[in-house]
Amino acid sequence: MAGEAVTEAKGGGVGGGGVADEFIVAPNPGDPALSAPVSGIDHTGARVETRVVQERALTLYLNAQEVVTMMTIGDHPDLLAVGYLLNQNMLRADDVIKGIDHDDDLGVVVVRTKRATNYEDKMKKKVRTSGCAQGTVFGDVMEHFETVSLPRDAKLKTSWLYALTKKINTAPSLYLTAGAIHGCVLCEGDRPLVYMEDVGRHNAVDKIAGWMFMNGADPANKIFYTTGRLTSEMVIKTVMMGIPILVSRSGFTAWGVELAKQAGLTLIGRARGKRFLAVAGEDRIEFDADASYDEGEDKKHRRKGAGDD
Amino acid sequence: MAGEAVTEAKGGGVGGGGVADEFIVAPNPGDPALSAPVSGIDHTGARVETRVVQERALTLYLNAQEVVTMMTIGDHPDLLAVGYLLNQNMLRADDVIKGIDHDDDLGVVVVRTKRATNYEDKMKKKVRTSGCAQGTVFGDVMEHFETVSLPRDAKLKTSWLYALTKKINTAPSLYLTAGAIHGCVLCEGDRPLVYMEDVGRHNAVDKIAGWMFMNGADPANKIFYTTGRLTSEMVIKTVMMGIPILVSRSGFTAWGVELAKQAGLTLIGRARGKRFLAVAGEDRIEFDADASYDEGEDKKHRRKGAGDD
Repeated sequence: MAGEAVTEAKGGGVGGGGVADEFIVAPNPGDPALSAPVSGIDHTGARVETRVVQERALTLYLNAQEVVTMMTIGDHPDLLAVGYLLNQNMLRADDVIKGIDHDDDLGVVVVRTKRATNYEDKMKKKVRTSGCAQGTVFGDVMEHFETVSLPRDAKLKTSWLYALTKKINTAPSLYLTAGAIHGCVLCEGDRPLVYMEDVGRHNAVDKIAGWMFMNGADPANKIFYTTGRLTSEMVIKTVMMGIPILVSRSGFTAWGVELAKQAGLTLIGRARGKRFLAVAGEDRIEFDADASYDEGEDKKHRRKGAGDD
Repeated sequence: MAGEAVTEAKGGGVGGGGVADEFIVAPNPGDPALSAPVSGIDHTGARVETRVVQERALTLYLNAQEVVTMMTIGDHPDLLAVGYLLNQNMLRADDVIKGIDHDDDLGVVVVRTKRATNYEDKMKKKVRTSGCAQGTVFGDVMEHFETVSLPRDAKLKTSWLYALTKKINTAPSLYLTAGAIHGCVLCEGDRPLVYMEDVGRHNAVDKIAGWMFMNGADPANKIFYTTGRLTSEMVIKTVMMGIPILVSRSGFTAWGVELAKQAGLTLIGRARGKRFLAVAGEDRIEFDADASYDEGEDKKHRRKGAGDD
């Protein structure tokens, strides 16, 4: 399935050389549109120059309907738009997209579907979710959530987990360049396929959902890695995407754990160095790596929490 | 003003002894309602027990109008409700609150004001903001933002900054108990006054805004500390609250920096150990502490990023 994805993949900004070659879509920290130079003073009073990530308003329309205005770093607006609509259950798996128009100057993206849509009423009922969240989850998302059944035979080898986190943490990224950004990575086995970053973690998730839809990727054999916390909203999105395994370097919320158990999702958090904690779907984990000691993470690539919220 | 606040302060869960005594409102990690035990397996396959933070739905009504459903850890629902309405500009500084009713079982909080309110139209126009954001910001918030002028004479001594971060990082907190939670602290001089935590950082900010309103606290001499990123939304909220100095251990977004400069807000990020970076309103900073070396943060209290998103 990854093969299919490869052949159809949109060219992401793949950093040249080494680990980055494994990615179908990788961050493009060199893109001047994604970060900006800022001048300030440090703790000694010395003048310093640094780079910070961009944050732009993007208004999403589904056909004639204005849906939401998102704050985003601005890359992959087409995938963000499609992924948002999918994760909000406003776009169905069998929907045919006639076109996606993006106007960078206006900060507008329009998704046109063959099926007529009308979410006037749906737009009225919103739930504000936790942390770096969607901001809104529509009522019927939960109804859909309860109907999803995740593949039992999917597995996660601990050797894959250690290889993935190392490749992800060492890949060139906006996080390493400018910090204050979240990352989500769609993985298969020990290979990271699609690495998306955004100022809103929910956007990074949605961009991956959009990429999967546009590339017909099979969720059943995928592993989803995120830098963010495992809240109810993160668990709901992963299940909505049909991915059986969710891994984060961050912690859990009680409802996130409860929903993961309910959906049969393998939920792994606090994954740092060789350490991790699995609190749901542990049976999918295959302990094939030596975890008797924790080598930790080298300082350069450790996320210092600049991705907070 | 802090004096006023003290006399009127609602009893927060102040942990006994030491630093915690400085707080008027401090986290209450001992409250069983705020975290739950979870069982799982670690990287060696060994069974482990841990605690994770709660995440509950709370639906907010302003008089007869349903406003939003928030995911929150569940403490201080009254302050969260008032603060949310203030930061959304739906409640005015001169509004008189007739009552706040909270039903824990129903997960509903109702704020009743003397002034009749009707935000039917307002509710239709929402903006989803970055990171651990409000989720929604109403159009006229920006209009209000442009009218705020922050006190020029406010100052931040680096000795205060170092004292504050140390007191905050060592105070008993849900972060230290269960992780995966954000913290915001209202400070004055070198004293942390109100320390709120929540699964959504926006909720922690709103609870502090609500506390300030209910206790008539003066924002002019305050310093706002957050664990989260300095996005546009975080800068907007701080300016809306009238606080001239915003400090975070996390990084910046370009628009956040731009808005801080526009509003004359002192914006300090990447504050870890003795290090920090000031990118706006640097003139309010008084370098009175020895910053020639960085002692870093002791491992136990370092935020490992479990507060991500």
